[in-house]
Amino acid sequence: MEKAVFYHAGCPVCVNAEERLTELIDRNRYDVEIVHLGQARGRIAEAEAAGVKSVPALVLGHDVLHINHGATMAEVKG
Amino acid sequence: MEKAVFYHAGCPVCVNAEERLTELIDRNRYDVEIVHLGQARGRIAEAEAAGVKSVPALVLGHDVLHINHGATMAEVKG
Repeated sequence: MEKAVFYHAGCPVCVNAEERLTELIDRNRYDVEIVHLGQARGRIAEAEAAGVKSVPALVLGHDVLHINHGATMAEVKG
Repeated sequence: MEKAVFYHAGCPVCVNAEERLTELIDRNRYDVEIVHLGQARGRIAEAEAAGVKSVPALVLGHDVLHINHGATMAEVKG
């Protein structure tokens, strides 16, 4: 199983992206973790280190897929 | 099978997103069509009507997931 981490901040754009990705992803191949950065603020640094510039975003190995635009990381931190 | 249409324009950001999405999507549930708008220019209007503002983008029913940012539709048309 490959790990995929979906970072979001609870915004409407995030919720829509989460619903769509949850349907889309092949769960036989991917172990998906969903992280709400507004609630798990200790993981903001981890998301930034992975290359997340805005949420919602999906981190897959070394790649980041920024999906639509809910909020910048500065807004998430602010 | 639900239909998913991935629109791109051959740019490096598009190619990377295509590779990742191709791996990610559950092919038992989604029939994925890949459309290169630089080559299939007759489909630009269809993409815009579906709500595509930039490429790469994945259209799922009434939702559009814009994934990272390769080029605006104005750039694709230009």
